[in-house]
Amino acid sequence: MNKSSIIIVGSGESVSDLRYASRLSTPDEFIYFSAAGDPALHGVVVSDLEYGRALKNCPENFIILNSAEIGRGSILKQLSALAGKYDFREFIVPEYFPLALADDLRAAGISVRVRRGVFFPEREFKSSDEIELIRRPLRAAEAALRRAREVVAAAGIGNNGELIAEDGEILTSEKLRFEINSVLLRFNCSGVGTIAAGALQSALPHHVGSGPLFARTPIVMDIFPRDEDTGYWGDLTRTIIRGKAPEHIRKAFDCVRKVRDEAQKLIRPGAIPSEIHRFAAESFEQAHFFTGRDEHGTCGFFHSLGHGVGLDIHENPRLGPGNHKKLAGGEVVTIEPGLYYPEWGGIRMENLAAVKSDGIELLTEIDDLFEV
Amino acid sequence: MNKSSIIIVGSGESVSDLRYASRLSTPDEFIYFSAAGDPALHGVVVSDLEYGRALKNCPENFIILNSAEIGRGSILKQLSALAGKYDFREFIVPEYFPLALADDLRAAGISVRVRRGVFFPEREFKSSDEIELIRRPLRAAEAALRRAREVVAAAGIGNNGELIAEDGEILTSEKLRFEINSVLLRFNCSGVGTIAAGALQSALPHHVGSGPLFARTPIVMDIFPRDEDTGYWGDLTRTIIRGKAPEHIRKAFDCVRKVRDEAQKLIRPGAIPSEIHRFAAESFEQAHFFTGRDEHGTCGFFHSLGHGVGLDIHENPRLGPGNHKKLAGGEVVTIEPGLYYPEWGGIRMENLAAVKSDGIELLTEIDDLFEV
Repeated sequence: MNKSSIIIVGSGESVSDLRYASRLSTPDEFIYFSAAGDPALHGVVVSDLEYGRALKNCPENFIILNSAEIGRGSILKQLSALAGKYDFREFIVPEYFPLALADDLRAAGISVRVRRGVFFPEREFKSSDEIELIRRPLRAAEAALRRAREVVAAAGIGNNGELIAEDGEILTSEKLRFEINSVLLRFNCSGVGTIAAGALQSALPHHVGSGPLFARTPIVMDIFPRDEDTGYWGDLTRTIIRGKAPEHIRKAFDCVRKVRDEAQKLIRPGAIPSEIHRFAAESFEQAHFFTGRDEHGTCGFFHSLGHGVGLDIHENPRLGPGNHKKLAGGEVVTIEPGLYYPEWGGIRMENLAAVKSDGIELLTEIDDLFEV
Repeated sequence: MNKSSIIIVGSGESVSDLRYASRLSTPDEFIYFSAAGDPALHGVVVSDLEYGRALKNCPENFIILNSAEIGRGSILKQLSALAGKYDFREFIVPEYFPLALADDLRAAGISVRVRRGVFFPEREFKSSDEIELIRRPLRAAEAALRRAREVVAAAGIGNNGELIAEDGEILTSEKLRFEINSVLLRFNCSGVGTIAAGALQSALPHHVGSGPLFARTPIVMDIFPRDEDTGYWGDLTRTIIRGKAPEHIRKAFDCVRKVRDEAQKLIRPGAIPSEIHRFAAESFEQAHFFTGRDEHGTCGFFHSLGHGVGLDIHENPRLGPGNHKKLAGGEVVTIEPGLYYPEWGGIRMENLAAVKSDGIELLTEIDDLFEV
């Protein structure tokens, strides 16, 4: 008799744990279950509309249940029927499990226990197949970046330093983002949130950019496509400048690139993410790039050095000050130091790498070309 | 002394209630609060990185708190600090509030109560400003559909009935989706999940389509762009056919269109969604289009007639068999009957309309052109 089961509820499109466990992605909610201590008793409860897709996509040994076996009705009803069918007395659920459903299940006498932290810690470690799936959107990002560079390089420079596109119109962040996302589409990737931010907007790491772009000020392009077929993400940032960079911006660029490349050398099994992050922060300090608040606002290097990438664009491991857990090998992480100064803008340079037994395999292939 | 407050936690990008209440959309999690009985005491707790964006986007009378007022740390810590600051003893949260956070708050002595059902029922009723925001992605969908029709109309027909694009290659679902999504990009809309499904795939309402498209079989195009600036969605479905439709498919098309147009006439304040849905279902039956399971699988008209559209692509009110709540006016809904037969494919025709005092205002402007 089975007593306890893992339960995840959601749509595969928005809940990556569900997609990871079931290989199923649907617009509608469905249920994943996996009995503790009985590896054969796991599967999904799907709507009749998704039954065919589940048969095709779920692993071979999955139990696929629909309304014929479980009955129609709400997710609560289906979960109760599932508990009855297999004599589950306790559900083990992720932190993000919906509160109302948990309250209802508890009221119905089913124990609901949260598994704290990351639900599937094994997601942190990518198989070679998964690494291939991450390469695809990363190739898309690189192709898109090449196109964006071409557009900026081909732009003329107006009287006020504004960039003039080949069609004679002012080159804006919006146009550049359109060029980037158009290339992503060719790779069947979506580019929701693509950043193409110039001048002072580039000093705000989350600003997607708007309005005219200018020569001799940084243009930060952060491109993170998701492969629509597989759900895996790529992540790439480069900063470019049209024309010759002013000396202080060139210095910042050189420093960011150097810190990224030196931080990459520290990544290997056994290395501690918080220490790699601290190395980056201290390197900036030693190069006299101040981090903190000045009269203009927050400045310097004030975000994490990097993060894991997989079925979520931000996942474990975090390469930040709070993560003291040693790398083990198999992780895929970004390394993306940046410097941001409200007086002149920002620089961010981001690579993606897989942690291997003796260091990293750099997944990013594109160069660091800065002045175009 | 305030005792109780609405609390929502999430990223504005994925939690529409949060975006609705705060007008803020961020990649990172933040907190929205609104004290019961004190309209002046509402605002957000955001990271320092998002402080500037919150100042710019949130309503003028919002309290905007960051780490200086609330302290750094986890969402749990910030919520506890918020409760302390304003003497909140109870949090009223949506059904989807994360269970782990609720368990922790309860353990810390803060009562957490779920508000059942839709969290902001007023989201169902759109202001004229919101209707304008919905028109934008709808216009994008219509432009994309026009382009897709051009591509199909210009296609040649190969020896096996396959469509040949102007570049001499076989016209596939993937290519058609690319053409559609490329147009959406020009409107700053993303087209994740765009459906361009032909032949037997069109009999599966959730199939996005893959592989070659053929003449004289239906091609269902379901285009639901999201405006990246505002978060509002459009929704449009048309079915087209290259060449002359076989008689049985033409008959199904005519019937779906007639049912849609007649159902639209029933929509007005006071009308009951489940009855409008039933009207559609009965109309199909009377026209001898069988719904149910036959030897080929599920067939006929087996999904809801429509749904609300706004900051979520599927929201209230549902025009389905389960919704007996009268329409009140101000809703924006799809009307999208469909017929699906595994032997030959499917037809779906979807309009979007605003419920007005005397009926509907049709937001969809594009025609129903079928044979191209």
